[in-house]
Amino acid sequence: MTPKLADKNPFPVCFADVEAAAKRLHGKAFKTPVLTSETLNKQTNSQVFFKCENFQRTGSFKFRGACNALMQLSEAEKLRGVVTFSSGNHAQAIALAARLLAIPATVVMPADAPKVKQEATRGYGAEIILYDRTQVSREELAAQIAGERNLIIIPPYDDARVIAGQGTAALELIAEVGELDLLLVCCGGGGLLSGCAIAAKTCSPQCKVIGVEPDRADDAARSFRTKTLQTVSNPDTIADGARTPSLGKLTFPLVLHYVDDMATVSEAEIRKAMFFMWERMKIVVEPTGALAAAALLSGVVRTENMKIGAIVSGGNVDLRQACQLFYDS
Amino acid sequence: MTPKLADKNPFPVCFADVEAAAKRLHGKAFKTPVLTSETLNKQTNSQVFFKCENFQRTGSFKFRGACNALMQLSEAEKLRGVVTFSSGNHAQAIALAARLLAIPATVVMPADAPKVKQEATRGYGAEIILYDRTQVSREELAAQIAGERNLIIIPPYDDARVIAGQGTAALELIAEVGELDLLLVCCGGGGLLSGCAIAAKTCSPQCKVIGVEPDRADDAARSFRTKTLQTVSNPDTIADGARTPSLGKLTFPLVLHYVDDMATVSEAEIRKAMFFMWERMKIVVEPTGALAAAALLSGVVRTENMKIGAIVSGGNVDLRQACQLFYDS
Repeated sequence: MTPKLADKNPFPVCFADVEAAAKRLHGKAFKTPVLTSETLNKQTNSQVFFKCENFQRTGSFKFRGACNALMQLSEAEKLRGVVTFSSGNHAQAIALAARLLAIPATVVMPADAPKVKQEATRGYGAEIILYDRTQVSREELAAQIAGERNLIIIPPYDDARVIAGQGTAALELIAEVGELDLLLVCCGGGGLLSGCAIAAKTCSPQCKVIGVEPDRADDAARSFRTKTLQTVSNPDTIADGARTPSLGKLTFPLVLHYVDDMATVSEAEIRKAMFFMWERMKIVVEPTGALAAAALLSGVVRTENMKIGAIVSGGNVDLRQACQLFYDS
Repeated sequence: MTPKLADKNPFPVCFADVEAAAKRLHGKAFKTPVLTSETLNKQTNSQVFFKCENFQRTGSFKFRGACNALMQLSEAEKLRGVVTFSSGNHAQAIALAARLLAIPATVVMPADAPKVKQEATRGYGAEIILYDRTQVSREELAAQIAGERNLIIIPPYDDARVIAGQGTAALELIAEVGELDLLLVCCGGGGLLSGCAIAAKTCSPQCKVIGVEPDRADDAARSFRTKTLQTVSNPDTIADGARTPSLGKLTFPLVLHYVDDMATVSEAEIRKAMFFMWERMKIVVEPTGALAAAALLSGVVRTENMKIGAIVSGGNVDLRQACQLFYDS
């Protein structure tokens, strides 16, 4: 990086954007509770603070980014309406944020997306367009619909406003518990990870930030190590939030710059962490939401006498399906 | 009640005791989070605030009463040690509170109590004495052991210090969210219900207090209606915290005086409320912890434009067993 470039922040998202997002989201997004576990503290010989975004509106952190993006649309753009592509938490987040702001919302969703997620998204008032995921690329379909209907596209993670919104989770956590030695964040497309890393590196400069992925969907870990964007195709992991094919054009450079390391955990470790969080911590988390805890409980990330933050990304599960996971482990 | 008696509070627990308990427990018990559900608010046309004692230390409100009782022992009594009888949450609460205060603790528990609860109690450092529940009364056995070993008995609910401690749950809730129109509290032996009713009637004088029981264990509801102590014997309900045979000598008059009404819900309604709290609210609650929500979701308690508090008593379940409940419903 040349000195001239270093004078300006070369990235599309900076700490001021996260701060602005926090102001914007005040009274819209929930300030989610921070929970601890005496058992885990003992086991890690550390203090671990879980930022529980499973209690966020729509059941995941995605509401932060979605709402922050929609609130920055012009009045003319709001009248046109928005479209997004997601089978999961971002779809519900866009649907609710759009309803609150009286913006028409369309969601492009694979025809085989779980009925419960389709219903939740429709319940918030969005129009759903189903497609055959073996035939069509969701990005291309969303772009086509946006063109035909004159809609604004709000991508699930590779968007500066979305990234800044997600960063408010770490900002809130550090504001509540103070500076950290370590922050663990699960990683799919990297929106939550890069946003939280930006926030942590300013609010708590000594804090190491580690992203956590399933080892079956380790594209970001490989991208991080090789400094070249790596992809993964339909990985077979229970952590559905981490099934994204790769980091994005915006999130990859941010992850390279702000994140200290990446860790990966096995499917069995994710299941065990989920079990621990449900039975011992009394919170319902989805598999992706257990990634950070899995890195700690498995010993993949070693800790000693540290103050640790961990983002619990969400809690959206089909309860009966999720319960099945506990009988295999 | 004669005017002379009315000058003094005729009850063994008053609001000042709850306030004193709150001071005593500060920094010992957790200030548990208050959660809401937009879906339930819409359905009840009200605002419902859940005080989540499933996040309390040892996983239930019982820690409040146990710790408040043990902290009031004299130094000589602390050296002698304590004994209690409980197969469930009170046992764990006494075990942890005793460990924190360096008091030896003995727990009398039926031999068929779930292994997970025996282990948790032992894990906190208490000595467990198992007995055959078909042969022996737990109160008598505890009294006998207390005599032989010179121990102090800390009963699970019929104790002024325990009742005052449990009342701090409602005190904290009202301090956080403001005055209420209605407070719903599950009822087993009546310690939580009477303590919370005492707190609510002072902090929020307009607040109606309703106790909720399983209809299969409706002894308190019948006692309330007939004004004569009624009992129930080993009721077959999933709400194990409400299987107590009757209200106590202290809690019965307190419930008669401070509680406005009692409601009962069916097993199916408890299961449905549990499912709702796990899947939609993302919290793991035990069946007894879902009683208040069951009264609302089933429409047994009618609401309209009200500000409602609901105490979630605890979250201690064997996860795999609890998950089974969701396949029957």
